[in-house]
Amino acid sequence: MDVIFLRKPKIVILGAGYGGIMTTVNLQKKLGVNEADITLVNNNDYHYQTTWLHENAAGTLHHDRSRIQINDIIDRSKVNFVQDTVSKIIPEERKVILDNGELTYDYLVVGLGYESETFGIKGLKENAFAIANISSARQIKEHIEYQFAKYSNMREKKDELITIIIGGAGFTGIELVGELANRIPELCQEFDIDRDKVRVVCVEAAPMILPGFDPELVDYARSYLERKGIEFRIGTAIKECTTEGIIVAKDDQVEEIKAGTVIWAAGVRGNGIVEESGFEAMRGRVKVDPYLRAPGHDNVFIVGDSSLMINPENDRPYPPTAQIAMQQGINLASNLAVLIRDSGNLEEFKPDLKGTVCSLGHDDAIGVVFGKKIVGWQAAFMKKVIDNRALLLIGGPMLVLKKGKFNFL
Amino acid sequence: MDVIFLRKPKIVILGAGYGGIMTTVNLQKKLGVNEADITLVNNNDYHYQTTWLHENAAGTLHHDRSRIQINDIIDRSKVNFVQDTVSKIIPEERKVILDNGELTYDYLVVGLGYESETFGIKGLKENAFAIANISSARQIKEHIEYQFAKYSNMREKKDELITIIIGGAGFTGIELVGELANRIPELCQEFDIDRDKVRVVCVEAAPMILPGFDPELVDYARSYLERKGIEFRIGTAIKECTTEGIIVAKDDQVEEIKAGTVIWAAGVRGNGIVEESGFEAMRGRVKVDPYLRAPGHDNVFIVGDSSLMINPENDRPYPPTAQIAMQQGINLASNLAVLIRDSGNLEEFKPDLKGTVCSLGHDDAIGVVFGKKIVGWQAAFMKKVIDNRALLLIGGPMLVLKKGKFNFL
Repeated sequence: MDVIFLRKPKIVILGAGYGGIMTTVNLQKKLGVNEADITLVNNNDYHYQTTWLHENAAGTLHHDRSRIQINDIIDRSKVNFVQDTVSKIIPEERKVILDNGELTYDYLVVGLGYESETFGIKGLKENAFAIANISSARQIKEHIEYQFAKYSNMREKKDELITIIIGGAGFTGIELVGELANRIPELCQEFDIDRDKVRVVCVEAAPMILPGFDPELVDYARSYLERKGIEFRIGTAIKECTTEGIIVAKDDQVEEIKAGTVIWAAGVRGNGIVEESGFEAMRGRVKVDPYLRAPGHDNVFIVGDSSLMINPENDRPYPPTAQIAMQQGINLASNLAVLIRDSGNLEEFKPDLKGTVCSLGHDDAIGVVFGKKIVGWQAAFMKKVIDNRALLLIGGPMLVLKKGKFNFL
Repeated sequence: MDVIFLRKPKIVILGAGYGGIMTTVNLQKKLGVNEADITLVNNNDYHYQTTWLHENAAGTLHHDRSRIQINDIIDRSKVNFVQDTVSKIIPEERKVILDNGELTYDYLVVGLGYESETFGIKGLKENAFAIANISSARQIKEHIEYQFAKYSNMREKKDELITIIIGGAGFTGIELVGELANRIPELCQEFDIDRDKVRVVCVEAAPMILPGFDPELVDYARSYLERKGIEFRIGTAIKECTTEGIIVAKDDQVEEIKAGTVIWAAGVRGNGIVEESGFEAMRGRVKVDPYLRAPGHDNVFIVGDSSLMINPENDRPYPPTAQIAMQQGINLASNLAVLIRDSGNLEEFKPDLKGTVCSLGHDDAIGVVFGKKIVGWQAAFMKKVIDNRALLLIGGPMLVLKKGKFNFL
C-alpha cells in the first residue's frame, strides 16, 4: 500500500449503522480537514439504534428516542453527508452507484447492515412483519394498535385479531416478547380489552429458547415470561405464514395458529447489495481478513452485519452484534488514518467481548457480563448501561443526556 | 293518568347518551330513595360526549377525555345500573328485552341515540367508517395512523394511502375536517411524511358547505379550511364507496378518488330498535307529543336523536342536537316526578335554542350565539364554554375540572 496521493484521498462510508457511524465519528476525530475527503452515505438523515428497535415495535419506546440526526454527530467541516440509497458497488472502477448519482472512492467502508432471512418459508415475506429499521418498527407498533382498536369495535369478536405471533426465540425474539409482555396490559387498558383475550405466542424451531445461552439463565427467562402470560412453542417449526396466521409442525403434528400479527424475528443475513456487487459472501456476509478487508480488495473494508469473522475459540462465526460492529468502526478508523498518513502498520481487529445482556422488558433481564451471570434488576440495569454506553461512543455525553435510558426502576 | 301504584313505580331509562343521562341525573335529584325504582340501561359502563367524538377520531383528543364512568355520575342508592344491550322493546307487555335478560317498566325513557344513515349508497356500509361511538372513533384514529405508518415504510409509495375522504360537509363533517387540518401536520412529523403528500378531501352533494348556516360564516369557514390545505368538492355526490376509495359524480362527470380512509359523516337516523319495536317512525325518529311521549303510549318517552319534534317557526324538524337532547332530559325528569307524585300538570317541552357553534379545529370556529355571529378565537372560546357547560349539567363542577377543555389559546 505505497500509493502516493496527489490529491486528498477519498474515503466513502456506506451506511450510518453502528459500524459506519463509528468509523465516521472516529475518523473525524483522527484526521484533519485537509487529510482526507470523507463522505458518508445513508438512506435516511439519521442513524438509529438497531438494538432498540424491538422497543419501538412493541410501543414501549418512541421511535424518536432510537434515532439520532446525522447532522448532530458528524463534523460537517470534515465529513460530507449524502442522503441516498446505495444500489451497487463496482469495485473494479472504485465506484458506488446510488439511486440519484454516483461516487468514486480510494477507500470504501461498507456498513450496509442486515436483511431479514426467511429461509424460504412460504408466505413469510408477504404476510409477516420483520423489524428492519425505524419505519418498519413503527409500522408494527401501529399495526398492533390497529388490531386492538378494530377488535374493540367488533360486534362479534374474532379473538385471533389480538393474537401476536413472534417467530423465533433467539435474542431478538425474546427481547421483543419481553417488551410485549409489558405493553399488552397498557394496550388492554387503552382499548378496553380483557388481558385474558390477548395471546402472545413465541414459536421456536430449536428445542429451547435462547440457544447458546446458559441453561440457568434460559430457565429464568422462560419462567419469568410465562408468568407474564407469554406462550412458548418450542421445537416447533413454522411451515407457512398466511394472511390468517401461521401453520406450524411439531414432530408430525400440524397445527394452524390464527393471528392478526405475525412478526418474524428468527434470522438475519448480510445486505444483498454486497453479494450483488460481486463480493464473495455467505448469506450476504463477507469473510473479511484481520484488517476487515474484503478478499481481493485491499481498499474495501466491510464492517457490521455484512462482515464475517471466525471466532478461533470455537471455530464458529462471531454473531452479528452492535458490540462488534462498533469495535470494528473504532479499529477501522485508526487503520484508515494509518493508511492515509502512511504512518506505520495496521492493527488487527480483535473483538473484545464484554458480555451479553438480553432484556425481558425494561424491568428485567438475563446476561453474562465479564464472565458473571446476572438476572433481575442488576441485569436490567446493566442493559441500560450498555445502551447508554453505545450512545456515549457515538455522540458523546450530550447524546446520552438526550436519548439515554435512565428509568432504572 | 290516575294510576295508583301499590309498589314503587319502575322507571327504566334506555341509553346513557345526552337525553338518557340528563333524565337520570335530574331524576335522582328530584326523587327520594323510596319514590321510584329507577334503572338505567347502557351497553357501556360509561357515557360519552357524542359531540366530541370527531376529535377522538381525528386524534386531537384522547377518547378517555370524552367518556365519563356512569358510576361517577349516578347515585347508586337511587339508580340501578344495568350494563347490557337493548335488543327489543315490547310496549304491550311493558317489557324491554336485553341481550342477557329483560326488564319490566311502568315508565320507559328511550334514549338510544342515532345510527349512521347511508341512503343506500353502494359500498358505504362495508368500506367507509362512521363515527358512532368511542370504539369506532378510536378505530378511525388508529386506522389513519396505520395508513401513515404503512406509507412511510413503503418502498414505492402509493400516495392515495394518505388521502382521507370525508363524506359530508354538514356540521359533523366540517368539525371533523377542522380537527384533521390540525392533526395532519402532527401525523406528518410523527411518520416522516411531507405535508404536501397528504390530501384531505371533503365531498358534499349540496351546493355549499354547512347548509343552513349564515353565508358569511360559511365563507369564513371554507376559506379558513382551504388555507389549511383541505380540498372541497361541492355539489358532488358520492355514487359508490369501494375498497380503493370513492366514485363521485358532478353534473355528468364521473370520477374516482382513491383513498386509504373514507369517513362518512353525512347522515344520521334514529336507532333501528325503535322502529323494530313497532313505534311509528320516520328514519328511525318518532314524532313525539309535547310531553315527549310516543304516539299511543302514555308511558313511553323518547328523547334525543330518536325523537322528532317540528319547529313551528319553519315547520321543519328540529335537528338532532345534544343541546335539545339535554333540555329534553331536564324537562322529562320534572314531568316524571310530577307523574309519580301525581302532583299536578305536565310541562310541555320547548327547546330553548341558545345558538350553534361549529368548530374549525380547537383554535377557530364559527357560530351564532344569542343571535350574534361570531368567528375566530371568540367563537373557539364559546365552543369550549358550550362543551364545558354540557359537562357541568351532566356531572357538576368536579366533572368540568376533570374533563373540561381549558386550552383556550
